[in-house]
Amino acid sequence: MKAPILVTGAAGFIGSNLVDRLLANGAVVVGYDNFSTGRAEFLAAAEKSQRFGLVRGDLFDLSKLTAAMSGCGAVIHLAANADVRHGLEHPLRDFEQNTAGTMNVLEAMRAAAVRDLVFASTGSIYGDTATFPTPEDAPMPRQTSLYGASKMAAEGFIAAYAEGFGLRARICRFVSILGPRYSHGHVFDFCRQLRANSKVLHILGDGRAQKSYLAVEDCVAGILAVLQQGSESEAGFCETYNLGTEETCRVSESAQWICETLGLAPTLEYGGGDRGWVGDNPFILLDTKKLQALGWKPRSTIREGVANTVEWLQANPWIFDEGAKTQ
Amino acid sequence: MKAPILVTGAAGFIGSNLVDRLLANGAVVVGYDNFSTGRAEFLAAAEKSQRFGLVRGDLFDLSKLTAAMSGCGAVIHLAANADVRHGLEHPLRDFEQNTAGTMNVLEAMRAAAVRDLVFASTGSIYGDTATFPTPEDAPMPRQTSLYGASKMAAEGFIAAYAEGFGLRARICRFVSILGPRYSHGHVFDFCRQLRANSKVLHILGDGRAQKSYLAVEDCVAGILAVLQQGSESEAGFCETYNLGTEETCRVSESAQWICETLGLAPTLEYGGGDRGWVGDNPFILLDTKKLQALGWKPRSTIREGVANTVEWLQANPWIFDEGAKTQ
Repeated sequence: MKAPILVTGAAGFIGSNLVDRLLANGAVVVGYDNFSTGRAEFLAAAEKSQRFGLVRGDLFDLSKLTAAMSGCGAVIHLAANADVRHGLEHPLRDFEQNTAGTMNVLEAMRAAAVRDLVFASTGSIYGDTATFPTPEDAPMPRQTSLYGASKMAAEGFIAAYAEGFGLRARICRFVSILGPRYSHGHVFDFCRQLRANSKVLHILGDGRAQKSYLAVEDCVAGILAVLQQGSESEAGFCETYNLGTEETCRVSESAQWICETLGLAPTLEYGGGDRGWVGDNPFILLDTKKLQALGWKPRSTIREGVANTVEWLQANPWIFDEGAKTQ
Repeated sequence: MKAPILVTGAAGFIGSNLVDRLLANGAVVVGYDNFSTGRAEFLAAAEKSQRFGLVRGDLFDLSKLTAAMSGCGAVIHLAANADVRHGLEHPLRDFEQNTAGTMNVLEAMRAAAVRDLVFASTGSIYGDTATFPTPEDAPMPRQTSLYGASKMAAEGFIAAYAEGFGLRARICRFVSILGPRYSHGHVFDFCRQLRANSKVLHILGDGRAQKSYLAVEDCVAGILAVLQQGSESEAGFCETYNLGTEETCRVSESAQWICETLGLAPTLEYGGGDRGWVGDNPFILLDTKKLQALGWKPRSTIREGVANTVEWLQANPWIFDEGAKTQ
């Protein structure tokens, strides 16, 4: 039997989907979550498996984290503050949760002698890039959001630990992810608005922002594909992979698909301006050739991802009742 | 009279040289230092000026730092753990001193409503780059040292604060700096060795590493040149400038110049390997066209910088007596 895999943020949107997939593949999984935004409901299926163990703990509880990792073969570090938009209201939150939190994961791995890591980073680290589709080795950009800065910072420390301590690290830079258990972001916000008032939909920005979105199943498949890379390396390993689709959609298109799926025809009211908030990147399209060269390919279109998300939200209206928890 | 300029790390090597230059230019200067590696001797001349005030404080004392900044027109943030080589022995030190410390500088600036910042970053952030001379917008590199990672991380948060809070930031990526008050690094180490035993000089690596060095006077002139940039900008500003010379020298050449200046002919013993330590970059040469376009140009050659440093160390042997303080 292979050594267990520890997943931080296991009760989150991506984390719980990953846990389910790992269990379906026969893996032994340790979930680690402080339930600050994670939801016990998302792990209901996993909890039925003999091969799943859950540790309620915080990244800042270094001894608990180290103990949870001990004997594990790999760590998939997803726990993070994923609220890109409200960073400026809490200027230290991204730094603390995402950068300092990752330092603790690295220190726990060193203490527990776990060498294999997959880290969930973000396309937001490309900041003000002018290169599209954006490859992993794009010209060094200027950071525009605290969220992007916090993930970029974590990436750098991971690479330095790989070099200095022989860690084998795979960094995944995600676009926004869609699908079952999605509980924040624009599809969630739009659906919540339309539940309250089906006649009007307020949209940040001018609706022309072009973004790329990836279905969570494709995201999870990408994580599992990169986990295999470099696993034989003795000398340390650090590679970075973009995860996204080769298409983009405009916010206005996504709004249209959401309304169609819900069977609604609200008035669309745009806030104006070329970006949704300060630090938002109005165009995101990642070059995913590097990951595709490993045989990975996204199976869902953005349109399918949006529709599946809306359908899941319709079938799980309880998620809206705790909306405050996700922001 | 212009508003005071606050210099963090004012009692350090570069900081004290900068303070002296600012005072000579007629500026009012607030020095901020915790004297963990700074030296009171370096500020002896500055202390005689009516336009200089010294605050003994730590970057982590946010209220003291905020109070010291209050009424200042600009902050030049030099305070840092500058010990690149021993990062792996203290894995959290670079993160804490350089990244978390910079977050506190940013928070203090926000609280004190100071908008203008110059930040001392490093060419080490180019990590494993293959682009030489390395421009500011080189392809995104992989970090190789905790020091480089910690400075890269700080740069990202500075850029995000500029975007989000209207900060006007200038990031300077230095090569290694040489000159009066130089108190760590290879010239210091070589001179210290030769004071103890003038017959043998142990050199890390194979001596073939090629590095660029800049005289501290040229570094200070570069800092003052970039401080003028963007000062009229209302909407936030963040530009990055490499500071270095257009030449490199090999460690073996530098060792030769040091021995010549000291009038010694020791046996040179090389440790071997292509780099001095894990995470060391065996080739550093920065493209400085961007800063040169502002009219700045280095005046000293590397050879002059090395010789001046050796002469200063010879004239100030007391600096070796407290060697432990600098590492």
